[in-house]
Amino acid sequence: MKRSLGARTLAYPTPVFVVGSYDSEGNPNLMAAAWGGICCSKPPSVAISLRAATYSHGCIRESGAFTINIPSEDLIREADYVGTFSGRDVDKFQELGLTPVKSDLVNAPWVEEFPVVLECRLNHTLEIGMHTQYVGEILDVKVDESVIGENGVPDIELLKPIFYDPGTRGYYGAGSILGMAYTAKRPDKERE
Amino acid sequence: MKRSLGARTLAYPTPVFVVGSYDSEGNPNLMAAAWGGICCSKPPSVAISLRAATYSHGCIRESGAFTINIPSEDLIREADYVGTFSGRDVDKFQELGLTPVKSDLVNAPWVEEFPVVLECRLNHTLEIGMHTQYVGEILDVKVDESVIGENGVPDIELLKPIFYDPGTRGYYGAGSILGMAYTAKRPDKERE
Repeated sequence: MKRSLGARTLAYPTPVFVVGSYDSEGNPNLMAAAWGGICCSKPPSVAISLRAATYSHGCIRESGAFTINIPSEDLIREADYVGTFSGRDVDKFQELGLTPVKSDLVNAPWVEEFPVVLECRLNHTLEIGMHTQYVGEILDVKVDESVIGENGVPDIELLKPIFYDPGTRGYYGAGSILGMAYTAKRPDKERE
Repeated sequence: MKRSLGARTLAYPTPVFVVGSYDSEGNPNLMAAAWGGICCSKPPSVAISLRAATYSHGCIRESGAFTINIPSEDLIREADYVGTFSGRDVDKFQELGLTPVKSDLVNAPWVEEFPVVLECRLNHTLEIGMHTQYVGEILDVKVDESVIGENGVPDIELLKPIFYDPGTRGYYGAGSILGMAYTAKRPDKERE
């Protein structure tokens, strides 16, 4: 039996994307976005949604670029901090002791201490309502050697990514592997 | 030390959204989307990206509606199946023994057996490249009573949501709660 919870933003999982950008004076800033996700395979693209009131909103529009820095479990405090305060009030890199690295592909900073970094060029802007959606083309993904697994991509058990629960506002870790995609059998084969 | 992995769609986590729609003859269809996420708080909206070649792509464009059905761990087989085959070739509801329920809010079917359901009206269409992004306004979220926790929203430990790793193509479960959002202290307070 289902209960109606009304028109609201519940989905599972949502990511914890730490978004890097430069302001008009070249100061690096960070914010956190749970509203976002990959949105195209070719060109490889990722979407993030920001309220116009955020400092990063104007930074990204003007610079035409952003990075997505993906935290591991041990970076939850930093991810939560950048999602709580505004870059208008504090220098988040300085307060957290994080290291901004200027991308050589786009006009945006990434965070040295984060294990996975996406460097993105702003390709589309969509005004949806309270949030503006920025679609960025992913020009490169940079990954710490220490979390790369046998097959040359991040190993979830090494990366220890986190996700956000918008219902309870909790952060969660990754659990066990449950299976591999595209292993479903054809219905006609199942019947043989 | 970071290694460059090139321009590709890696992000952690990505969701496993099972998308429901009707074709022009009113037949219910399902597909799986890992490219998507919440994209606006007001109006509450969710984005999914589909290749034009999918059967659902035309169904959603014509019907102007879709549902997102969020699987728990015990629905991985069904989620993988709907992501592997095309609604042009098989009736996925029938093959999987799932029950389509006609939404009374939008012209789309949701899946009775899935614990969380979002009923969405198509509000925006963005052509990005290989994928078309559909932005739907969430008109209601329906949740199985059995997964609702004390605070009236889904409890992650009861819901047991899954996420997808686009690097290895693995499905993963949710791990332990690691903390609550918006608990970061103001920098000036930390110094007191």
